[in-house]
Amino acid sequence: MNYTEMEPAKVREYIREEKIVGPTSGMSAGYAQANLVVLPKELAYDFLLFTQRNPKSCPVLEVTDVGSRYLKKIAPSADIAHDIPLYRVYEKGILTGQYKNVEQLWRDDFVSFLIGCSFSFESELITAGIEIRHNTEHCNVPMYITNIDCEPAGMFSGKMVVSMRPIPVDQIVKAVKVTNEMPQVHGAPIHIGTPEQIGIKDIGKPDFGDAVTIKEGEVPVFWCCGVTPQSVVMNSKPDFVITHAPGHMLITDVKNTTLKYM
Amino acid sequence: MNYTEMEPAKVREYIREEKIVGPTSGMSAGYAQANLVVLPKELAYDFLLFTQRNPKSCPVLEVTDVGSRYLKKIAPSADIAHDIPLYRVYEKGILTGQYKNVEQLWRDDFVSFLIGCSFSFESELITAGIEIRHNTEHCNVPMYITNIDCEPAGMFSGKMVVSMRPIPVDQIVKAVKVTNEMPQVHGAPIHIGTPEQIGIKDIGKPDFGDAVTIKEGEVPVFWCCGVTPQSVVMNSKPDFVITHAPGHMLITDVKNTTLKYM
Repeated sequence: MNYTEMEPAKVREYIREEKIVGPTSGMSAGYAQANLVVLPKELAYDFLLFTQRNPKSCPVLEVTDVGSRYLKKIAPSADIAHDIPLYRVYEKGILTGQYKNVEQLWRDDFVSFLIGCSFSFESELITAGIEIRHNTEHCNVPMYITNIDCEPAGMFSGKMVVSMRPIPVDQIVKAVKVTNEMPQVHGAPIHIGTPEQIGIKDIGKPDFGDAVTIKEGEVPVFWCCGVTPQSVVMNSKPDFVITHAPGHMLITDVKNTTLKYM
Repeated sequence: MNYTEMEPAKVREYIREEKIVGPTSGMSAGYAQANLVVLPKELAYDFLLFTQRNPKSCPVLEVTDVGSRYLKKIAPSADIAHDIPLYRVYEKGILTGQYKNVEQLWRDDFVSFLIGCSFSFESELITAGIEIRHNTEHCNVPMYITNIDCEPAGMFSGKMVVSMRPIPVDQIVKAVKVTNEMPQVHGAPIHIGTPEQIGIKDIGKPDFGDAVTIKEGEVPVFWCCGVTPQSVVMNSKPDFVITHAPGHMLITDVKNTTLKYM
């Protein structure tokens, strides 16, 4: 089955029927995929405020109404409790289970946050002629926990997580310009070069994902990463949170290019 | 006293001492001024979600911690209960009083929202060589209630309010480009020309502010307006809200030009 060319609603149908249970990378090419954080209403204000104070790490695409499993803007036909291939449940910061759907766990006081993902700006970088090394090397993007504190909000606090892509010196300006146009998916880089300045001791040992080759004449460029909100939620140990499993995203009906104008 | 050239902290001192009690337009030239909405915590989630769903109408510059009268980012030395020349209190949507400070009314459960203001982009338009008609005519900007529904959030809903500036046809593209660079202060226009299409029956009769001359060869251009959040808050009739009185803003320590990079 060719999921790359398939419309998002159709892919979500296969996911809902649990015929797709793996990562969504590359499916419905050109359409934005989103990170998921589901919290009880009593924690939702603190988390929403956290996203407002840390917009580069947590670019919110949509927040549901309390108790609703449905989105109005980015994927009106999606069911949040079924349309992600794999969910994770964390209780007091500890992973307590993975589920193909969260129908049985759903509560009337849940609020869902859909957060932009760097998959979207990578396709724009490729269009601009910039190689994405972890694609070339068929691995996951390297991610690092930095020494930069997020702005805390209520119960939520923690360090910023960044993703890294090696960029040839003469393409750095272009990479900044392309991603700056897409604030809904982390926007421009947060740091260029000098990993030690943001607390990264060994660029060859990422905290999440895989190490990639940095060639002669290339500079490590760092972007805010969608792992930050999950990492902060875990760090802050709320009683009960549902997230997507890494790489198992919600495929939205919004084209990456359209995100520029939302 | 020349308040135009004065540093924001110094002007706020005069306001705190109630030596300045009038509108702040033109004071501390080059620095951003902000709209204020203060709500009890129990309403803050709905309002914060409203701003997230309506970012062009409600560009949030900063939200305080619960009970705090102090800002961390945009004006660290300001006291929210004293540093605005004139406050308004609304109870269930009805204006019940105006105050030079709100010290006596302050409660531990208050949350303050500071929202960007079009004063900031007007100075950029002037720098770009675009005349601001209501400045030339020494009156307030004309504002209109449209037929466009804001995205509702919890208890908050209502129509979008827009401000209008007449722009010569050959300067419209420039006006869009300049304001598009400043999403923190309403960003690009929401509508160009054809007022009737957004429910404005008589361009000569604004709902707020003053009518201005539209010359031959000029087109009315409409931007989302900072009156929207106040109008929506009033429309939704919460028990108790404090706002600034129109034109009596918080002068921040952030330069308008810096807002582009926040």
